[in-house]
Amino acid sequence: MNQAIRVTVWNEGLHEQELAKCREIYPNGMGRAIGAYLEKQPGIASVHCSELLDPDQGLGEEILSRTDVMIWWGHKAHDKVTDKNARRVQQRVQQGMGLIVLHSGHMSKPFMLLMGTACNLKWREYGDHGEKERLWVVDPAHPIVEGLPEYIELPNTEMYGEPFGIPQPDQLVFISWFQGGEVFRSGCCWHREAGKVFYFRPGHETFPIYHNELVLKVIYNAVKWAAPTRLAGGYTQGNVQPLENMDR
Amino acid sequence: MNQAIRVTVWNEGLHEQELAKCREIYPNGMGRAIGAYLEKQPGIASVHCSELLDPDQGLGEEILSRTDVMIWWGHKAHDKVTDKNARRVQQRVQQGMGLIVLHSGHMSKPFMLLMGTACNLKWREYGDHGEKERLWVVDPAHPIVEGLPEYIELPNTEMYGEPFGIPQPDQLVFISWFQGGEVFRSGCCWHREAGKVFYFRPGHETFPIYHNELVLKVIYNAVKWAAPTRLAGGYTQGNVQPLENMDR
Amino acid sequence: MNQAIRVTVWNEGLHEQELAKCREIYPNGMGRAIGAYLEKQPGIASVHCSELLDPDQGLGEEILSRTDVMIWWGHKAHDKVTDKNARRVQQRVQQGMGLIVLHSGHMSKPFMLLMGTACNLKWREYGDHGEKERLWVVDPAHPIVEGLPEYIELPNTEMYGEPFGIPQPDQLVFISWFQGGEVFRSGCCWHREAGKVFYFRPGHETFPIYHNELVLKVIYNAVKWAAPTRLAGGYTQGNVQPLENMDR
Amino acid sequence: MNQAIRVTVWNEGLHEQELAKCREIYPNGMGRAIGAYLEKQPGIASVHCSELLDPDQGLGEEILSRTDVMIWWGHKAHDKVTDKNARRVQQRVQQGMGLIVLHSGHMSKPFMLLMGTACNLKWREYGDHGEKERLWVVDPAHPIVEGLPEYIELPNTEMYGEPFGIPQPDQLVFISWFQGGEVFRSGCCWHREAGKVFYFRPGHETFPIYHNELVLKVIYNAVKWAAPTRLAGGYTQGNVQPLENMDR
Repeated sequence: MNQAIRVTVWNEGLHEQELAKCREIYPNGMGRAIGAYLEKQPGIASVHCSELLDPDQGLGEEILSRTDVMIWWGHKAHDKVTDKNARRVQQRVQQGMGLIVLHSGHMSKPFMLLMGTACNLKWREYGDHGEKERLWVVDPAHPIVEGLPEYIELPNTEMYGEPFGIPQPDQLVFISWFQGGEVFRSGCCWHREAGKVFYFRPGHETFPIYHNELVLKVIYNAVKWAAPTRLAGGYTQGNVQPLENMDR
Repeated sequence: MNQAIRVTVWNEGLHEQELAKCREIYPNGMGRAIGAYLEKQPGIASVHCSELLDPDQGLGEEILSRTDVMIWWGHKAHDKVTDKNARRVQQRVQQGMGLIVLHSGHMSKPFMLLMGTACNLKWREYGDHGEKERLWVVDPAHPIVEGLPEYIELPNTEMYGEPFGIPQPDQLVFISWFQGGEVFRSGCCWHREAGKVFYFRPGHETFPIYHNELVLKVIYNAVKWAAPTRLAGGYTQGNVQPLENMDR
Repeated sequence: MNQAIRVTVWNEGLHEQELAKCREIYPNGMGRAIGAYLEKQPGIASVHCSELLDPDQGLGEEILSRTDVMIWWGHKAHDKVTDKNARRVQQRVQQGMGLIVLHSGHMSKPFMLLMGTACNLKWREYGDHGEKERLWVVDPAHPIVEGLPEYIELPNTEMYGEPFGIPQPDQLVFISWFQGGEVFRSGCCWHREAGKVFYFRPGHETFPIYHNELVLKVIYNAVKWAAPTRLAGGYTQGNVQPLENMDR
Repeated sequence: MNQAIRVTVWNEGLHEQELAKCREIYPNGMGRAIGAYLEKQPGIASVHCSELLDPDQGLGEEILSRTDVMIWWGHKAHDKVTDKNARRVQQRVQQGMGLIVLHSGHMSKPFMLLMGTACNLKWREYGDHGEKERLWVVDPAHPIVEGLPEYIELPNTEMYGEPFGIPQPDQLVFISWFQGGEVFRSGCCWHREAGKVFYFRPGHETFPIYHNELVLKVIYNAVKWAAPTRLAGGYTQGNVQPLENMDR
């Protein structure tokens, strides 16, 4: 992928309406906080921010057709995304679109469809302040860790713990340590036919995780990693003729 | 898994009704041909054969609850399997049941749900006799190849070719060579939460593939590999308390 | 692998001579503590315990030729194992022998040869009592976790932390949490040609880790997993004739 | 990796001296044929060509220290590369250098050291003209296949067949079909600590494989994929202090 990348940041956008604390941290919403960072980075052609309450839930064909990489944040309204829209995202990934699923998006319909599993996990919100997390880099060769320190520390966060009901990642990039005694595979890569999927754990509606420069850097690195690969002429499936002469 | 294994062989069972050639090769149906072999093998507690036209499509809760490993053959009526039954199979796999998907089952609902991809491929039926296939062992350490020669040759078969729209296998066991110029990942292993899935390519309604001793041996080896692993007490997901004292 | 398994437990055996605390915990040595447990388990044909100071360093051809699975514990004398013996172990694995490498064996010559990497890591011995570790099961379908709880807790242990300089495991089974803030891939599976390798972190010369029933259970499960697969007739490499007629 | 890439093409360089046919096809040697293509591509800072008969076998510290990605072609003199030089290449990969191993380099010392296996395979040179090979893309999402057709056909080539004695690739990109009846994993990716390794099968001293535009394109794509990732500040291994307060 050498062309500039067109990003769509999809954000559920409901916590922002309902929680004063969320609005305080993200006055323009979580999606736009991420989008504002990305649009300043090299190699990004455009950033479109869309939300659940937009026309077509922000997931119409026209939007998807001009998206190279989609970022997904959802939490409390996974079931409101229509099956049709969820399958459209799944199919676009199978055709080459990158998908970066953040935090509570682990139980979003498109992610679950792409994984084939229930994607459940342990979780805990400890008091008002949460607990400490460290995301350790376990694959220092992976392009998603370019320019990072050996771990990212988030002082106040929600806990996610194993067993995380996902297929084994093709490449496991981060493992999280939590103060309360759990671990979590918090940065996971998969290919799904022509498309790439990255799950990245950090993020929450009432902690300022998406103002953390290192978290944003990982998202940007992941956008570049997830950008589509394009076969010249695509590929054929279905009924085909033999390539080889079989008359012998 | 040290206990004897309860197998259910699920067969669509329609070609047997409609094609004289199929009946000739498999007078009792493809499923029962496989089942008759398996029930004579060590470590198999029971073999139940069920079909699409059975009550509950042969996929009712009672049957699944006493199945350790399910074998699946379907082709022309994938869409007749109800979504509810397909999801029940998917969920049972997530909970530990092994699933062995044969040949044209690559586009069955349970397999597609578990893969998260479209599972399409190239294919060709060359004349009446098909063409030659060789399944090469590429992972000689894998228990599924126990006792095999280094390749299995099928003189007359349908071709399946790449790109096969599946997630990268956790373990790739066989790669097929076809006379007409194609290759195919024909023996593929995945874990899906607590359960295991094996896709195995050989099989066809009008070639006597399931009378081939080596093909049957692979299926038997796969049954043993796919038998459930059981955690003592299972595992918890959802909201949990900290294991560690966090008052400090 | 349906035959009973012949195990060799190789133990460096030097700490036992030099440390009173080690002798107190393991009066017959660490290797024999593991061996004594294994020889009582079903499916184990024999257990041989060998040590660095034995003839041929306990790694002679005759011993290796009757070993299906070798367990390896070493720490302070990795460099005393001759290159010839280390390569013999490596080659036997490539030919089918299982190898289970424990704890500080991560820098043993056979393991490093089989990994192709430097296998370094972070470590810490905290005071006299070490610190708490939890080994979380992250692949509940894997046969190595049969019968375990969802995590194993070791109250007093040495810390090992990431980045662990290994190739990505083919299957990652356990991730450890440590009280002091680190994580570790503590149960890792690889195939190496016809043989299987399992690295398992627990163990130490002055903590009674190999008296822990769950740790021993994992080692036993791993022995069964690592037992050789045998192709009928093996396989050929080198210069070969075409299988297919190419005169056309 | 956003910086321009410094490439070293290492070529054994002996066939060029001894075979008229090789000189005819590659008047400046195979290494320089590849180098001449690469130095015209975007994002390549420099291309250095070195050979076995150069000072320090073309593998001195100064050369390696300014190499981001090394390409390796060797065949008849693998054993002439000194162990010291082979280990230097291995260590540089562990520290981040990319390594692209071509064709008969499968039994070169650096590759074997990095794999931990014997890396043997089947092979055949059929008459003067060899036989037909098709390299099928099996991972259309991988950046190494950017811009390719769904398969690359080489009309005249040497056969390499399975079992190929390598660790399971982290990502399998190409599978080859051969006219004579064999298959081969012909494009394989691994991470080895901070570095990346790509094995790519095509190439031969007496067939003009490195004049094929698609083969060259794959090598160029692989150079970009294998370019180093850099952690800010690197990472620590060895004895470390606890990150977390453990006085409680």
